[in-house]
This record gives sequence, structure tokens and C-alpha cells, in this order.
Amino acid sequence: MTVESPSILDQYRRVRLASAVIVEPLEPEDCCIQSMPDVSPLKWHLAHTTWFFETFVLKPGLPGYQTPDSRYESLFNSYYNSVGQQFARSERGFLSRPTFAEVLEYRQHVDDAMQTLLAGDPNPSLLNVVELGVHHEQQHQELMLMDIKHVFSRNPLDPVYRERDTEEATDLIQFDWVEFESSLVKIGHSGTDFCFDNETPEHQVYVEKFELANRLTTCGEYLEFINDGGYERPEFWLSEGWRVVKDCGWDAPLYWQLQGDQWSVFTLAGLKELNPSEPVCHVSYYEADAFARWSQCWLPQESYWETAARAKESKGGSFLESGHLHPQPGGASVDCGALSQMFGDLWEWTRSPYIAYPGYRASRGALGEYNGKFMCNQMVLRGGCCATPESHFRLTYRNFYPAGARWPFTAIRLCRELGAD
Amino acid sequence: MTVESPSILDQYRRVRLASAVIVEPLEPEDCCIQSMPDVSPLKWHLAHTTWFFETFVLKPGLPGYQTPDSRYESLFNSYYNSVGQQFARSERGFLSRPTFAEVLEYRQHVDDAMQTLLAGDPNPSLLNVVELGVHHEQQHQELMLMDIKHVFSRNPLDPVYRERDTEEATDLIQFDWVEFESSLVKIGHSGTDFCFDNETPEHQVYVEKFELANRLTTCGEYLEFINDGGYERPEFWLSEGWRVVKDCGWDAPLYWQLQGDQWSVFTLAGLKELNPSEPVCHVSYYEADAFARWSQCWLPQESYWETAARAKESKGGSFLESGHLHPQPGGASVDCGALSQMFGDLWEWTRSPYIAYPGYRASRGALGEYNGKFMCNQMVLRGGCCATPESHFRLTYRNFYPAGARWPFTAIRLCRELGAD
Amino acid sequence: MTVESPSILDQYRRVRLASAVIVEPLEPEDCCIQSMPDVSPLKWHLAHTTWFFETFVLKPGLPGYQTPDSRYESLFNSYYNSVGQQFARSERGFLSRPTFAEVLEYRQHVDDAMQTLLAGDPNPSLLNVVELGVHHEQQHQELMLMDIKHVFSRNPLDPVYRERDTEEATDLIQFDWVEFESSLVKIGHSGTDFCFDNETPEHQVYVEKFELANRLTTCGEYLEFINDGGYERPEFWLSEGWRVVKDCGWDAPLYWQLQGDQWSVFTLAGLKELNPSEPVCHVSYYEADAFARWSQCWLPQESYWETAARAKESKGGSFLESGHLHPQPGGASVDCGALSQMFGDLWEWTRSPYIAYPGYRASRGALGEYNGKFMCNQMVLRGGCCATPESHFRLTYRNFYPAGARWPFTAIRLCRELGAD
Amino acid sequence: MTVESPSILDQYRRVRLASAVIVEPLEPEDCCIQSMPDVSPLKWHLAHTTWFFETFVLKPGLPGYQTPDSRYESLFNSYYNSVGQQFARSERGFLSRPTFAEVLEYRQHVDDAMQTLLAGDPNPSLLNVVELGVHHEQQHQELMLMDIKHVFSRNPLDPVYRERDTEEATDLIQFDWVEFESSLVKIGHSGTDFCFDNETPEHQVYVEKFELANRLTTCGEYLEFINDGGYERPEFWLSEGWRVVKDCGWDAPLYWQLQGDQWSVFTLAGLKELNPSEPVCHVSYYEADAFARWSQCWLPQESYWETAARAKESKGGSFLESGHLHPQPGGASVDCGALSQMFGDLWEWTRSPYIAYPGYRASRGALGEYNGKFMCNQMVLRGGCCATPESHFRLTYRNFYPAGARWPFTAIRLCRELGAD
Repeated sequence: MTVESPSILDQYRRVRLASAVIVEPLEPEDCCIQSMPDVSPLKWHLAHTTWFFETFVLKPGLPGYQTPDSRYESLFNSYYNSVGQQFARSERGFLSRPTFAEVLEYRQHVDDAMQTLLAGDPNPSLLNVVELGVHHEQQHQELMLMDIKHVFSRNPLDPVYRERDTEEATDLIQFDWVEFESSLVKIGHSGTDFCFDNETPEHQVYVEKFELANRLTTCGEYLEFINDGGYERPEFWLSEGWRVVKDCGWDAPLYWQLQGDQWSVFTLAGLKELNPSEPVCHVSYYEADAFARWSQCWLPQESYWETAARAKESKGGSFLESGHLHPQPGGASVDCGALSQMFGDLWEWTRSPYIAYPGYRASRGALGEYNGKFMCNQMVLRGGCCATPESHFRLTYRNFYPAGARWPFTAIRLCRELGAD
Repeated sequence: MTVESPSILDQYRRVRLASAVIVEPLEPEDCCIQSMPDVSPLKWHLAHTTWFFETFVLKPGLPGYQTPDSRYESLFNSYYNSVGQQFARSERGFLSRPTFAEVLEYRQHVDDAMQTLLAGDPNPSLLNVVELGVHHEQQHQELMLMDIKHVFSRNPLDPVYRERDTEEATDLIQFDWVEFESSLVKIGHSGTDFCFDNETPEHQVYVEKFELANRLTTCGEYLEFINDGGYERPEFWLSEGWRVVKDCGWDAPLYWQLQGDQWSVFTLAGLKELNPSEPVCHVSYYEADAFARWSQCWLPQESYWETAARAKESKGGSFLESGHLHPQPGGASVDCGALSQMFGDLWEWTRSPYIAYPGYRASRGALGEYNGKFMCNQMVLRGGCCATPESHFRLTYRNFYPAGARWPFTAIRLCRELGAD
Repeated sequence: MTVESPSILDQYRRVRLASAVIVEPLEPEDCCIQSMPDVSPLKWHLAHTTWFFETFVLKPGLPGYQTPDSRYESLFNSYYNSVGQQFARSERGFLSRPTFAEVLEYRQHVDDAMQTLLAGDPNPSLLNVVELGVHHEQQHQELMLMDIKHVFSRNPLDPVYRERDTEEATDLIQFDWVEFESSLVKIGHSGTDFCFDNETPEHQVYVEKFELANRLTTCGEYLEFINDGGYERPEFWLSEGWRVVKDCGWDAPLYWQLQGDQWSVFTLAGLKELNPSEPVCHVSYYEADAFARWSQCWLPQESYWETAARAKESKGGSFLESGHLHPQPGGASVDCGALSQMFGDLWEWTRSPYIAYPGYRASRGALGEYNGKFMCNQMVLRGGCCATPESHFRLTYRNFYPAGARWPFTAIRLCRELGAD
Repeated sequence: MTVESPSILDQYRRVRLASAVIVEPLEPEDCCIQSMPDVSPLKWHLAHTTWFFETFVLKPGLPGYQTPDSRYESLFNSYYNSVGQQFARSERGFLSRPTFAEVLEYRQHVDDAMQTLLAGDPNPSLLNVVELGVHHEQQHQELMLMDIKHVFSRNPLDPVYRERDTEEATDLIQFDWVEFESSLVKIGHSGTDFCFDNETPEHQVYVEKFELANRLTTCGEYLEFINDGGYERPEFWLSEGWRVVKDCGWDAPLYWQLQGDQWSVFTLAGLKELNPSEPVCHVSYYEADAFARWSQCWLPQESYWETAARAKESKGGSFLESGHLHPQPGGASVDCGALSQMFGDLWEWTRSPYIAYPGYRASRGALGEYNGKFMCNQMVLRGGCCATPESHFRLTYRNFYPAGARWPFTAIRLCRELGAD
């Protein structure tokens, strides 16, 4: 795959600016909080994505490059053992220094050097790393929004990240099944466009006959599950899920709060009354699976999802750029085809564990640590969400989280199989 | 599937007797220890398998049946939420009562009642449950051997479960690859013979071209991995596996002990000098996977394993009945075909997470809790082991454990893919 | 202090026999359970007390003495760092071997050697260690009864250690205060009789004017505290105690069970209906202190308790030899003087932390680890209990447990100060 | 005790200003970090001390007082159950809002209202609470310095709180013992000046003959203990201390770092080379006690310390106002009398557990929660330190921490007893 240097500089600038835009509504204090080990302070995201370019592009590729502080090498290393020691992940919230302002200076320092490098005639393999770095930073943009939402949700003052415009009510699409015949299909990324290594190689999969829900499960539907004792009846739950429900005292999706007999939902626009027409969001795989069993359905395999998605013509859906930062009810207007909201709005849990495609090869060196080493005890999610930059998303994109994760923007799309033939 | 009552009574008696034989070399104290939460006291296994027949066969099926103690209903319930409360799993080792002798009386009581029931003309659906109960007890026989091995291993006195005859040395088979072409294959159980629900339905899978090792990885080969810094080099490890290695201080398979510069291995015959020709045993999935990466190979998918196994003519291999209770070096003599030790000796880790086959339906009622609810964060193992009763095993049998489990009799068989075409 | 060898041999035999009598009603399985880290299997107590004589008397003092198993040296070492490594305390319940029968053989082996040694003309300093060993074993006799009570209490079958005779009802003594004037008193052990090092040196303490309850707090009185919301009102509790109450969900003393609206109490004679006239038992220091605050009183300092106890003429009270194994209501009949049940029945929490008396010197060598190293974060209890051998007890005896301990036989005696003058 | 309102307003202003001065060198991010559960963000200290005046003075005492945010009532409540719910202590570091700036506004709001109230003719009992609030805020000033030191110490960038002037070298005082005869002494606070309730009532204590070190243990002396295997030899340690040493991997005082073979010490002025003449600092009680045992000495009882301190003429020593923020070597110049550095520089561990004086009565209502409920499992420290405001300190002042605490400014002063007579 070849990356051209003028366009990549534009891309670089645009993506770096987008990160700055994300922290624009925030105070310095907001950017140094780690509200759980999975969350990183936003300041850390800003520095780590910068560190990525410094470590994998500037240090090897720009002669004479000087880092502003050599201690950043381990401080902002996330998990690259090949690069060296890493500051303990669970202690990222203990770092008041470098301050937010100092991190912005670090970004500027690296941006200047990147400009120099990209204005020259850089090695093509280096350009490939820059392109990876750009996608890496886009991934962190979604994480930044997930993380600040979690940080604010732990604060009893219910801070608002950004006020939301009141949307016009959209009619909820009538639930329906869309049927797909059994067949031998191709799955995975082909061609020379950018993709992560875990999307390759393209390969054949035999897919049974299945039906997919034409839209995401709504809050109203999920409320019926709750009201039917969903969180109190072990028969719907995976054994491990049931243990988590009991240990953590779950009785609703993350960010739902019951006040009196009215449910509210904490959003990036603050605490809002629950809207039954909206897709349900921030459920774990355990909850998605339990809801599906309660509905006498399944979640789709990722090969089903990709098969269905390939039939669609455009991405549609609500991505980060829409500014909604919350899944939209209905979504009929933004999606063409019988399947609504396949792209954007929310990541859809599949029932496929995240494993290597047959013939998968991880990249060599440090960047080989990007994806392959996480292929254990995680589930695949598909489709992108309202916090995903649109240019970051692809139909073959494989997102993954542990079954208990609830802070990503997750959703439920039901599936049925008509039996192996 | 129809079970005939005379043969099932024989089968019942044989299997019940086999459990008694397993505890024959033990003292009452040996049978009440729980050396980690995964382990159950052997006395508990004896009672729980009895409880299974009492709960699912006698109570519903034998009019007038009286339990010796109604408190056993929750005390010996493992995980059947539909039956009711369960005594806490992690506290099974706190129960000195019922004593070993009282548990044997409980077994006799239930055996007598089962004899009465089976001598009559029981309902065919009840007979199916009896058959399931027989297989259930066989599963627990393997667990009993795994568990007593772990119990004894924690005792600095190195107790011996049963002395082993010195075997004649067998020549180690020369390592080789066996190649399989890509194809659309059928996987899973068909026909009316007994199987667990998780082996169904039979279904089609597209399998890439692959090569399978003709024998299991040996202790000698694994030692090379250790000596090459295998446990010190993160590049070979899944991220989660690396964390476990560091947190638990793993530096060799479970039951290996380094004394001076000589490795010993704790076995059911006590502490023995490490034999480099034996298959390596009691490795976690993390270790199996790291060894495979170090070897620039993969572990097989379960569909690869089943495809390869279908080519073989007989089970061969060392099962429980052989009395070895330990994997045998070589195994050439016991296996026909190019692939050695596919059946028996050791369970082989596959890289397939344990999930439902397409179209899977769990049984109704309590027995539906048998398999389906564990389909999350576990890996499939195939092939049976030296602690598995031979009549319990099938080619389509899917065993499963979490990636960190080391106390089952596990092994490594390497695999290579030649790339998707 | 000089110990005479004939009498010490008698003493030795009597105490060794008493341990055997304690395990007489038990099954081998009962003796190998560790129901919480504080508890040791009874078999372990039998072996450890034997180890004490072997390690500190026979090995140094009997030429040619052979241990039956050199691995017992670390296996049955409790906490003597000077002797060497110790098998992990929390794993004592993992040891099925040596079996109960083998431990009895170990005892016999050591008893035979001790007989030989004591029949000779042993070194006086060795005789002092034998005497210490005898008292050490008596301490463990009380622990054995505490521990088997805890083990049985975790078993839903409510096993009975020994049936209790129904006692004749005794009239409850009318509650009253007994007043003591301020004075400079002597506290601690003097003279040449045996005592533990922590009871020395005798020293002067200035004691304020105080009043002591003439009897122990009863279950009935404690029930009033519960019914007044005692476990729900933080104002009565030490900060640390309140945290424990919430974290552990305490709502009554250990071994109390509410069935419907009737309280039962688990005892060594099985589950019994609560008797409001009995002294309340198995409360932590936190609970004793909270009850005292609720009563607008204090717990006594240990110097107050000893001052009051010195006024009494005889030990009286229920010790192990009475066979009650449970505190007796009233106790008027067995105690002379205005203060009832000062000795025996139950250990009384004082509000004095366990620290060294001024001028305290620990013994030299391993035996110096006996008491001194535990002088931190423990509270002193005084008076002996129904599981304490009578000959083990002294007026100056200082028992000690962490503030959260509930499995010792503990009690509450209220105290008031009239203000410093 | 009567407090006069003009002087109290001055006092109030001075103390409030002093808090502002403490945070002056810091960035907003520095003030929102919680580096361990014991530490609170500095912003939280600023708000909580303000909340104290709002809750206990303004709400009851200033008609028409309006809080800027009613949610602060629980958010900034530390541990006053009588006031209501408290935001979880361990989550104080999750609060980016209110921001540092908003907290300063809250302080101004309360200061204005306090000015109004104190300019009037407030109730004398209210003035007593104001005085308590002033001392409360001074306590938190010391905590703020302890906490920011801990926060900065966890940051690999070694931030500097405030540069320290290089002091002129002072000659280290020659070690010597100062002897005190046995006697019946008065201990505790008398008179009408302000004190905390735990310093009362004054009462008599019989004190044995003892000797006290004329100066604090130095880093150089402590280094000898380390080099003699102090952290590797269990014979010097309390049992509980030894466990902590092993579990936490302690091998030196907190804030010591070994680089090559040179020790450095992290201070509020950044990382400095260890000065062997300085008093050793930031040791736990366990370490202080182990050092004393290694020295064949004891730590003093608090009654010994107070007896010795009463012989001194002035406070002397380095308090917060000196600006050193670190213990000074020697200290001969600042102390009169044979005992150096009794006041200021460092808190001296006593071997006395923190318990109520005989006749102690806690205050009524919420303020009764100030001291009494912590009287369990803590040790008394005496003498004040370089982070204690001088006007906050008294000779009878009883500071207290758990035996494992190392982040307070603690020290060792050796003691010897010549035996009870």
C-alpha cells in the first residue's frame, strides 16, 4: 500500500486538530482524571498519540530530532514492550505533571517536527507508519469521548461536556427481520487501502441462513426486559455474566439512574430523561446476550454482520462529525436499505470472540503489538459509533472489548438462525 | 435417541463402581480437601454425581423416593440455578460432614433406588437423563483425578496416589507436518448416539489449507523454549497471558519443580525426574500459544483438529483404563495413522474460543444449564486424556477451560496455515 | 524459677492426654478443616504442640533423638522465624497428610522420647521449657475448641461436638455497680510460679476511681441494643468498627442466627434457642465498645480489671474441666464476692491495647517470639473462659486478640469512671 | 473556655490566608490528584475546611445564609455521619469539578459570610466552634503538605514544590541519654486555652524511671540498621510489621531511592542526596520499633515524652512558618535544654496506642466525631513537625496514625527503661 506525502500531511493536520477540538470544552482538571483503570486521563491520550509519532516516526526518521523530555518515552508508552518499560497504567491519574499546558507544548513540538519530516521526502515505509499513527489518534479520539463521559458520570455534580440541540422527533422504525441465505462468503479486507492487520487476510467463511433485525434494540424494549425481571433471573445469563451482575449489583445499563420511578440517562450533554425510542446503549456483552436469550434470539456472528453490511450502499449513520455524541432514535433518514443504523450511532456486539483470521500475520516489530496480542477473551463489535471519526471507519473494521465492558458506545442488534441445514 | 434400560443399568453400575475405584487408594482426609476454588473435595464429587441422579431421575421419576437428608439438595448442587440455592463453591472444603463414610452411604441409598427404578419400566425421557447422568459422572471421574493431583501437589510431603510401573522406553517419533487441503467440511455430532448438546448441530465449515504436527510437543522441546527465555520475553505472549505470567510468577508448567539445575515433575505417582520425551503437560492456553508463537506456528482451530481426526481409524491412545494416569512418551504403538496421540493421553488446546455452533439449542429446563451458559471466555480442547474414561470420549467431544487453567491434563499440538488463498 | 522433674512429668502426661480427650468425639475429616485463615485444623494443633516439645526440648536436650520426618520441622512451625521457614498458615487446610492417625503416631513418638528425657536428670533450663510447652499446649486446647466450633458453624448440617446436659435454671443476678477508689496499685506477676513473659514485670500503675459491673452483659441486654438499631447507628461505633460492620454485614454476634423472628445460637452442642439470661458471647471489641457507648459506659482498663480481681478469693467460674463449653447464665453459685464470673466462663474485653509492661524483656532466642512480637493492634482480654483449662489460668493472665476477632469466647463487662480528680 | 470575637476574626483570616499560600506554587492539576486512599486532593482540603465552617457555623448561626451548591454538603463531608452521607473517600480524586477556581470562589463566599457573622455578636458557643474550625484548618494545612509531597513522589518527573535554600551546615549533636526519675505525674491539658478533647482530662500517671535520647535518630544511624540487614532480619520486627515489610517490599523509609549505591531522598524541594546528619523521616511505627529493638532500646511511652517535654522552656524547633518543610540536621541552635528538637521538625512515634484518657468525654453532636471514634489501632505521635503551623501546636498535643503510616513527617527518638523497681 502506498501513501502519498502531501495528502498525508493534510490528514495529519486535520486529525491532530480534531483532538484539540475534543478537549476544547474542558478544564485542565477534567483532563487529568482516571475514574477507573480502563480510563486514561484525556491529557494522557493527547500525549500518548503524540508519543506514537515521536517514537515510531520522528526518532527513527528525522535526523537530529530532540525530544523535549526523555522521560516521556516510558511515561506515555501504553503497552509496547518492545519500546521498553511503561509507566503503570492504573497510575496515569496520579500525574499532575506534565500539565495540560505542557502537553499541548509537547504536541506542538512534535507537530513542528512532523511538518519538517513530511515536507521532505520521507521513506514510504515511514509514511505507512504515519498513516497508522493518524488512525491510531482517531481511535484515541473515540476513547477520549468514552473516557470523559465516564469521568463526568462519577461526579455527583453531573457536569455537561457539550449541550445538545433538541432534535426533531423521528418516527421509530417498525421492527422487522431481514433474511439472508446460506452461502460461502468472503470476509475481511482486501485491496491497498489502509486497514488494521486484524482485518486481514480476506478469507472464505461458510455462513448459515440467518435473519438480522432491521434496527437496533431500543431503550423501551430493554426496559421491558428489566421489568420482566431480566436482572433477577439467572436463566437468561451466561454463568460468568450472572456472577458479574451479582458482584457488581448491576440492574440496568451503565449510566442509567432510577429516580423515584423515572429512569434518567447520563449523557455527554448531562443527565437526560430516558427516551424509549433511542437505541439502548452502554450494555455489556453479558447484558446484550441475556437480552437476546430473553427475546429467544441470538446476537449475530461477525461474519453475518459483515455479510449483511456488504449489501448496503453507504455508511450513513451518526459519526463523531455529526456532533450528536449520542445514538439517535430511528435513524431511518440517514440509512438507505432495509437495515437501519448499521454504520455509526453504536457499536454492535457480535457473538464472535476476537481471534485471528486464518492466515493472519501480525506486523513485525513494535507495531506488531498493535492488535494481535489482544486476541483472547474479547468479543468483536462492528459498525462504528457516534464517537467514531467517520474517516476512521471501514465495513471490515473489527472493534473488540471484554464481555464486561460497558463504557464503550455499545448496542444490541438481534439475530436468528433457522437451523443448520 | 433411545436408551435401552437393561444396558443402561449395566452402564450405570459400571460407572458408579469406577468412581469407587478412583477413591480406593485414598484416606478419608484426602477426600475433603479443596486446594483452590477450582478444585472440589473428592467426597463432594462422589456426592454431587449422586445428587444428579437423585435430583433429575429419582425425585421426578421414582414415586415415594425419600432423600436421606433434604439439606443435600443445596449442599451438593453445583450450579443449577433452576434447582435452587447452591452451597458456596469456594467453601466446599469447609465441610467435614457428611463424612466420607456417610457419603458412601448416600451413594448406596441412591444406587438402591436407581436399581429399583431401572428394574421397572421407566419413561424413555428419564432414561435419557440417566444416560446423561452416567456421562456426567464420567466427567467427574476425570475431575477427581485432576483434583487429587492438585491437592497432593500442594503438600510438601509429595504424597503418592498410585505407584507407576516403569515403562519400557519407547522411541520418540520424529517430528513431521501432516498436510490437509482447504475444503468445506462437516463438523459436529450427527446420528442418535449420545452426545452433549454443545456438539450439535452438525454444520458446514470452510477450512483453509493447514498442516498439523504429527505428535504432541515434548517436555524437551518446551524446555528449549524456557531456556531461550520464553517466560521472560513478552513478544511471544498474549497481553493477558503476559500479565498472568508476571502476577503469578510462572516460569514453567504447573507441577514442574527446579531443584538445583534438574527439573522434576509432580505426578500421581509422586515426584519424578523430568522425561524430555514425554509430551509437555499442564500448560495453560497462554503458554501453549506462546510456545506456538516462539515456534513461528499456531495452535489449530477446533475445525482443523476435527477434520484431521476424522481421518483416523480408532481411538487408540492412553485413556483412564490404561492406568498410566500420565501421558506416555511417543505413543507410536497405540496410534494408527500419521497423526500420533490424537486421542487420549492429553487434551489439546485449540485456538478456538468455546462458542455455540450455528443453530445450537440448549436443552430445556435445568439440564439446559449443562453447557450453554459457559460459552464465554473459555477455549476448546480436543482429544481426551489419560484421566478420561474411554467410553466417555467421542471424536466430536468439546472440552473447554479458561485460558489460564493449568490443572487439566493439557497439551500442545502445533499447526501451520499456508495463508488464505 | 525451678521446676521439679517428677511433677512436670505428671503435668506433661495430664496435659497431653487432655488434648487427646478433646478430639475424641471427632471424625478424622473434622480435624483437617481450616474454615478461615485464623483457624487451624485440629490435627495441626495436635502436631504443632508436639513439634514444640520436639524442637525446643528433644532436639537440643535428648542425645540421639530422631524425628519421624524431618519435613515436620517447617510443616508444623507456626511463627518461629528463628527456627526457620514455616509452611504458609493459610494453607494448613490443604494438608491431608500426615493423616490424623499419623499425627497420633507422631505424638506417641514424642511422648516416648519425652518420658525418657524426663525420667533422666534433665537440665533445669530445659525443664523450664517443658513447663512452657505444657502451658503452650493448654493454650492450643482452648484454640482447638474455638476452631472446631467455627468449623462446624460453617456447615449447614449444624454438627454437634458434644451434647450438653440441660442445666437447671439459675436466677439471673441483679445488675449492680461495684465501686473502687483511686489508688497506686501493683499490676503484673510476681514470685516464682510459672507465667508468660508478658505478665512481667510487676509494676505500679495509678488507677482512677471506677465502678465495675457485678456481672457480664447478657444476651437479653445485648438484644435491646440490637433492637434499638445498634448495628445501624454509627454514633455508637469506632470508625474502624463501623467500617467492618458495613463491609461484613454484621447485625448480631457471631453464631447468632435469626430464623423468622426467633434468634438461635450455634454452640458446641449444636444450634440452640437464644437464652436471654446467658452472658452474650463471641462479640468483637468493636461490638463490645459500641454496646458500652450505647449504655453510656466504657469497657474497663486492664489495670482496673486486675485491681478488682485481686479482691476476689478463688477462681470459681466455669473452666474447660466443667464440661459446659458454653458460658453459664448467672454464675452466682460459682463465684464468691460481689463480682460474679470474673474468672472462667468468658474472656472479658478490656479497653487496653496489648503492649509491653514498663521494663518488659522478651525471653532470649526462639522462645522470645512467643509474646513480644504480637504487641501491636491487639486488645487485652482478661479472666479465662469455659474452654480454658483451669490450671492454665492466672489472675495476671493477659489474653489478646485483634479488635475484630469474634471466634474467641469473648464477653462484655461494663465499667464507669467518675472522672479524674 | 471563652473565645473573644475580635481576635478570632483575625485568627480566622490569618489561617484562611495560610491555606491559600500553601497552594500558591501549584497548578490546578496538582490540586486534584489522589495518589492513594489516605491522600486527598488539595482542592478537596480547601473545600472541606470551608465546608466545616459552613456546616457547623454558618448554617446554624447565620440567618439567611445560602450555600452556593447544596450538593457540597455530602461532597465535602469527610466522616461526619451525623451530618449525613459522605462522598466516598477513595473517589475524591475522580472529581474534576468543582474546579480549583470554583473552590476558591466557594472559599470566598464562605469567608464573606464568616466576616458578617463574626462582625456581629455571635453566640459564645458558636465562637468555640469557629476556634475549632481554625485549628481544624491548620491540621489540614499539614495534611496538604503531606499529600502534595506524596502526589509528587509518585510522578517520575520529580516535581519540585518549592526550592529550598542551602542551609549552613550545623554540627550534629553528640548522642546522649537524659535521665528522668520515676514519679507520679500529671498528664494532659488543663486550663481554658484551646485544646482538642482527646488531650483531656488532665490525670495522674505513674511513670517509671527512664532515659530519653537527647536528639532524633539520624539518617546515618538508620542507614547502619539497613546495612546490618535490618529489613531482612525478622527478629527485630513486630509480627505484623514483618508481614507488611514482606508484602510491600519495604527496604528503606518512604521517599528513599537507591540509585547505584547512592541513596537519594524525595523532598518538597525535589530529589536530594541523602544527608546522614538529618533526622530520619517518613518511617512507619513498625520501622521505628524495629530500629529501636535493633538498638536494644524502646520507643518512649507518651507519658514519658510529655514528662520530658514539660521540663523544656520554649517550643523552638522548625515549624511550618520556618519554610524549611524538611527536618533540619542538628537543631541545637533552635532548642534550649538538654533535649534537642522535642518540638517541631518531626513527629516522634511513641509506643503508646491512641486511647482515651481516663474520664474522657467526647463532645456532643457531630463534633464529638472529631477524635473519639478513631481511638483504635493507632499509635500516638508527639512533638509537631516542620509542616505543622506553630500556633496549632501544644505540648499536650496528641497526634495519631496507624502503625503502617509513612507519609506523615515521622521520626524516632530512642528511650530506655531501667526496669520497674
